[in-house]
Amino acid sequence: MDILTSLIRDIPDFPKKGIIFKDITPVLKSPEAFTATVDGLADLVADMDFDLICGIESRGFLLGTAMSYTLNRGFIPVRKPGKLPYRTIQESYSLEYGTNTVEMHEDAVEPGQRILIVDDLLATGGTAHAAGALIRRLGGVVAGYVFVVELAFLDGRDRIPDAPVRSLVQY
Amino acid sequence: MDILTSLIRDIPDFPKKGIIFKDITPVLKSPEAFTATVDGLADLVADMDFDLICGIESRGFLLGTAMSYTLNRGFIPVRKPGKLPYRTIQESYSLEYGTNTVEMHEDAVEPGQRILIVDDLLATGGTAHAAGALIRRLGGVVAGYVFVVELAFLDGRDRIPDAPVRSLVQY
Repeated sequence: MDILTSLIRDIPDFPKKGIIFKDITPVLKSPEAFTATVDGLADLVADMDFDLICGIESRGFLLGTAMSYTLNRGFIPVRKPGKLPYRTIQESYSLEYGTNTVEMHEDAVEPGQRILIVDDLLATGGTAHAAGALIRRLGGVVAGYVFVVELAFLDGRDRIPDAPVRSLVQY
Repeated sequence: MDILTSLIRDIPDFPKKGIIFKDITPVLKSPEAFTATVDGLADLVADMDFDLICGIESRGFLLGTAMSYTLNRGFIPVRKPGKLPYRTIQESYSLEYGTNTVEMHEDAVEPGQRILIVDDLLATGGTAHAAGALIRRLGGVVAGYVFVVELAFLDGRDRIPDAPVRSLVQY
């Protein structure tokens, strides 16, 4: 994906000192690059069997619903606490400093449904793991995980060994 | 859009007492309803001339990128403060209690570009107005505003008289 690697922008010290953030906004702004990204993600999961696509707030929303549209699958959001209006279940996970919590509507997944989890970035895998845990608590099955960018040196895929993990670009 | 009105769910007292929240997550979960929504929004703007689609965090991301994909236009995000990694410009606006602020990357829009603003809901119009102001400060032109749901009794469109305002469902 040369068009992706040429457009993804390194932002030093964001969101905090010492982290080099991979900014995908130039990819979104280019119709050619955005279409190539969505189609590339769809190709990566072409062999997976899934009923719904789960996108993680907020950048997972940017990719997930475009994939939902082109693959004709429903979309379910994972959000930060207090954002989803209906009854929710929560999952917390550890960060380097402190913890983070994500939520899903309790009627988002029906037992036996197979779910593809989508996000822009695989770093340590904590958020993706928490999304998978929410799906399993509702009786669903994680069919796979797909990311635009994988920071392979952080070994995030070791945290989500329960289903195939794919990514378009690896650093 | 009967499929939309049958699936949009009323949540009383969210996010605060006295407000009836229009929950679109059942629409997102249904491939038929989601496709009808994205295609319906695309039809509503078929006569508008625009270069880019601007989606407002977070629910505007859900619709905006799917529209970007099907209409082959680039996407630019408007986000809450501190979320965008590159240099930003900010715009604040009044709420019933206090103020809210939104940001846009300073390179999101080039002078003369025409932008379509997308969000799930038009209520008082404050957020949409702020997004439009950011675009104009960068030299862009607001080509139009489009929403899934319009709470017509709040007269939000009076706050954004600078461009056509369209919506799929009105309450």
